[in-house]
Amino acid sequence: MPEAVTTMDGWYCLHDFRSIDWTAWKYASNEDREQAIHEFKEMVGTWEGTEKAKEGSHALYTIVGQKADFLMMILRPTMEELNAIETTFNKSKLAEFTKPAYSYVSIVELSNYMGNADENDPEIQARLKPTLPKWNHICVYPMDKRRQGNDNWYVLEKEDRAKLMYQHGMTGRQYAGKIRQIITGSFGFDDWEWAVTLFAHDPLQFKKLVYEMRFDEVTSRYGEFGKFYVGNILKTEAIEEFLQV
Amino acid sequence: MPEAVTTMDGWYCLHDFRSIDWTAWKYASNEDREQAIHEFKEMVGTWEGTEKAKEGSHALYTIVGQKADFLMMILRPTMEELNAIETTFNKSKLAEFTKPAYSYVSIVELSNYMGNADENDPEIQARLKPTLPKWNHICVYPMDKRRQGNDNWYVLEKEDRAKLMYQHGMTGRQYAGKIRQIITGSFGFDDWEWAVTLFAHDPLQFKKLVYEMRFDEVTSRYGEFGKFYVGNILKTEAIEEFLQV
Amino acid sequence: MPEAVTTMDGWYCLHDFRSIDWTAWKYASNEDREQAIHEFKEMVGTWEGTEKAKEGSHALYTIVGQKADFLMMILRPTMEELNAIETTFNKSKLAEFTKPAYSYVSIVELSNYMGNADENDPEIQARLKPTLPKWNHICVYPMDKRRQGNDNWYVLEKEDRAKLMYQHGMTGRQYAGKIRQIITGSFGFDDWEWAVTLFAHDPLQFKKLVYEMRFDEVTSRYGEFGKFYVGNILKTEAIEEFLQV
Amino acid sequence: MPEAVTTMDGWYCLHDFRSIDWTAWKYASNEDREQAIHEFKEMVGTWEGTEKAKEGSHALYTIVGQKADFLMMILRPTMEELNAIETTFNKSKLAEFTKPAYSYVSIVELSNYMGNADENDPEIQARLKPTLPKWNHICVYPMDKRRQGNDNWYVLEKEDRAKLMYQHGMTGRQYAGKIRQIITGSFGFDDWEWAVTLFAHDPLQFKKLVYEMRFDEVTSRYGEFGKFYVGNILKTEAIEEFLQV
Amino acid sequence: MPEAVTTMDGWYCLHDFRSIDWTAWKYASNEDREQAIHEFKEMVGTWEGTEKAKEGSHALYTIVGQKADFLMMILRPTMEELNAIETTFNKSKLAEFTKPAYSYVSIVELSNYMGNADENDPEIQARLKPTLPKWNHICVYPMDKRRQGNDNWYVLEKEDRAKLMYQHGMTGRQYAGKIRQIITGSFGFDDWEWAVTLFAHDPLQFKKLVYEMRFDEVTSRYGEFGKFYVGNILKTEAIEEFLQV
Repeated sequence: MPEAVTTMDGWYCLHDFRSIDWTAWKYASNEDREQAIHEFKEMVGTWEGTEKAKEGSHALYTIVGQKADFLMMILRPTMEELNAIETTFNKSKLAEFTKPAYSYVSIVELSNYMGNADENDPEIQARLKPTLPKWNHICVYPMDKRRQGNDNWYVLEKEDRAKLMYQHGMTGRQYAGKIRQIITGSFGFDDWEWAVTLFAHDPLQFKKLVYEMRFDEVTSRYGEFGKFYVGNILKTEAIEEFLQV
Repeated sequence: MPEAVTTMDGWYCLHDFRSIDWTAWKYASNEDREQAIHEFKEMVGTWEGTEKAKEGSHALYTIVGQKADFLMMILRPTMEELNAIETTFNKSKLAEFTKPAYSYVSIVELSNYMGNADENDPEIQARLKPTLPKWNHICVYPMDKRRQGNDNWYVLEKEDRAKLMYQHGMTGRQYAGKIRQIITGSFGFDDWEWAVTLFAHDPLQFKKLVYEMRFDEVTSRYGEFGKFYVGNILKTEAIEEFLQV
Repeated sequence: MPEAVTTMDGWYCLHDFRSIDWTAWKYASNEDREQAIHEFKEMVGTWEGTEKAKEGSHALYTIVGQKADFLMMILRPTMEELNAIETTFNKSKLAEFTKPAYSYVSIVELSNYMGNADENDPEIQARLKPTLPKWNHICVYPMDKRRQGNDNWYVLEKEDRAKLMYQHGMTGRQYAGKIRQIITGSFGFDDWEWAVTLFAHDPLQFKKLVYEMRFDEVTSRYGEFGKFYVGNILKTEAIEEFLQV
Repeated sequence: MPEAVTTMDGWYCLHDFRSIDWTAWKYASNEDREQAIHEFKEMVGTWEGTEKAKEGSHALYTIVGQKADFLMMILRPTMEELNAIETTFNKSKLAEFTKPAYSYVSIVELSNYMGNADENDPEIQARLKPTLPKWNHICVYPMDKRRQGNDNWYVLEKEDRAKLMYQHGMTGRQYAGKIRQIITGSFGFDDWEWAVTLFAHDPLQFKKLVYEMRFDEVTSRYGEFGKFYVGNILKTEAIEEFLQV
Repeated sequence: MPEAVTTMDGWYCLHDFRSIDWTAWKYASNEDREQAIHEFKEMVGTWEGTEKAKEGSHALYTIVGQKADFLMMILRPTMEELNAIETTFNKSKLAEFTKPAYSYVSIVELSNYMGNADENDPEIQARLKPTLPKWNHICVYPMDKRRQGNDNWYVLEKEDRAKLMYQHGMTGRQYAGKIRQIITGSFGFDDWEWAVTLFAHDPLQFKKLVYEMRFDEVTSRYGEFGKFYVGNILKTEAIEEFLQV
């Protein structure tokens, strides 16, 4: 039986995608809309405080296409905090004008194929409890390692998996500075094995990376993908304009 | 034709996941909300009585992410009792503010690969009619054994299946004290062959267990999984706060 | 090209699963609810008349879990009658408070692998035009024979299929008196090739049968299954209690 | 690379399945219902004129089970006409009480495996621009030719495909007089490669044909099927009774 | 590991399919309908200005069948512009009467299998930043290259892929003047790897092309397809008639 590699796990992660009921929003009173925006910005303000205190992080992006209107990505030390933030949003005024579109529960993860990483190393800690970059674009998708006939990742020996992951890492390394990648594991938490969250200044880099990686053996033979979400940053100061009707 | 192993079967099980219509809930009158909470707590109180009398058990958890808001997991000696509990909830005030999210019908099961278990053994009886632990976290997912090309569980000989299950059990045993696992069978009752319900103090243990087990041959070649639900305990005394708007 | 075995076909069959909109039902006036129940019981009364006259049969069960609230299973000599019954229900008062949950169109079928059955034999006729048992529990699921790579039922020779079906029948025979089984064919009528409807006094027998049969080669290599529905009998005299709010 | 056979193409085809919102229909005023029926019958009257003028054809059937309440099948020389008919229906009074259930866009097609058909032959023309039979029952389903591992229709040589199609045709020929079949191609138009529409006096013939054909190699190894819809004729003079509440 | 070919990328692309709520539209006041049409035509007018300025392009088509009522296909230099156009539509009066039906996010792409294309060549630039033809018909579908067992595009060597793509191009070339094709890549942007958008004077050409190409090895063994949408041009001057009720 092949050996599982150890992973290091950091903050819990909730991707919370929402669609806006624009008609209801337009027919709301000015008062209701103002209250909704005010409350929402206050909530985001709290998140910013948490981020400054290095007790969590978050990202806010609009989503292109009909899959959702915006994404709240939240990192926190505990599952309870994720749940509380989600429930707080659900009870908020703005939530009355949104519908759930998709969500994903996971935890920041570093796999340790080399087996020599020290979890207490500050650099490792910074990657496990990251402050999410405020780059212009985001790309999110869940994935599995395939278990199908002769293409079964989980029956490969550890050294073979390590080699394939290493090659894959080499492809990724070419995008240093162009793309920042957060891998979150979701075994036991959600319907795929991992979620991948990419940040870029230029969204074309997402396409280049995902396309190029498809030829890596780890992907061509062993990668299975869910839905892809792509979006543009929604800065706190742009919330009002985004919601202006 | 391979021989089926005998199973021992205990209490019937209903996993009943619900989503809350928070907007309707907020716009309900205080009276309605109070009545809804009161009725719901009374219902849970009845369940607690049944549990004390060792005539059933239950668990109440909030669910993280958009798949559902909370889970009622109910164990009872008969299918009629499960149906009655479900219908009582459906007719309750709180149900007016919830929508069905997912449900699963099964029965607590112990498979007897060793073939030497005595169903009348009190320890076996306690596992077939368990009092569910009130641990902080829950993880629920349905699963099948694969029947696909060369990866077909049901054409393996009994001793081969027993060997694979034994290895799998060894992996599980490492989580003793960290995870409690309830296996419920659902052949003829619901869309997958089994449901797995895990309880943990620390939700990271779910990930570690599910990840590690993926390398067991019984999983890598023969496991198929449905959706995963993860949640936090909702104690009776916390219901009001959870529903506070 | 393998030879198709002849089948004998009896009454047409509609499985009609419905969910109740409990909130709307509760908010209906007493008058509306009474009218709805009265009309529904009258409709069931008509069905009972048809059953007595041996011109059809029916079964009424509540369904456990969120997939549906109740099932009306109807057998009639013609497709037109099924359609008329369905439309009559759709126009009834009770239908205003229900939503369609699932339906299945098929026809009672006996396959004739031995090739020596006489369709005019009264025993065969009784099986083709059965009076459904009023046993406590029902289990319904659709199925296909697999056509996938090396596991392709429809390329097997007739004698091989006959042998596999015979073994399968032997498994079933052990449940005589515990389970009654109605096989209905749905080629050209609905999305799967057959529906299986099982009746039992004790629902655990469903699990035992379905589990044990999974090891029959006809299932392990050639069976594909849809959703499983399980339920409890809803006697005419219990309708009012079931709908009491 | 295998050679594609030429096809001959006739009238464009829209299968338009609709469900009725019976509750809204019942609560409509008599006036609204009368207007809706009147308008609908006028629309059908126009279609009948087109059919008499040999400039198109149509069929109107009720559908058994919950998938839909009725089907409008429309043949016309252009895609624009199909679109116009659909939009006219959408704007009609009756449409206010219906919901879309399923639709399929295709074109009447004769494949020319023998390679000797003359498209100008009046008999061929009559099959490409058919007047749909007003037989009692209809059966509609979409299908693909499989492209999967060793079962890949599109890598077979033309003569092999021709031979398999010929055998298949022989099976079909036994149903002459019992079943009329319209094949419509939908490459580039809809989600499957073809739709099959069968008409019969006796719906049991659908089952017999579809079952028997499953053993033809062209089906057992190369056929993939979508959803099956079965229905009963809805004559113009029966529309009012069908909609009577 | 096979080498990825370089691609050249042009304008970002949003396919935005919408369904009309015809009942709500009919019950709207004349004023509201006029405002909605006026606003929508103004928006289209802005797009026409952008197109004239060669800073983007768009296409407006009605869709045949129930999948959608109309399609807005938008090309722009940035992801932000696509998002802004979508949000502007969502906030418009007409949007109050539509529901999202499907959307697709991608970018105009030329693959460079020959490896000798010069991205600065004006002809290449014109293909990367195309003015969409105003032909009578459109056909849109997403696709993947297959990664399945022995049919895995991404493990083929570059020269083998190039050869297969060349053959495929030869098939396409026969449709020059009859069909114009826009390939848009969506790795990292949406759920499939590419979208194909075809324009034709005669919709039968879509069927002929898609059918014929299915026999190309690149399709028969390596092509996977999503849903197909087919439609008729909706000229600005025909919008009012289309929406007339």
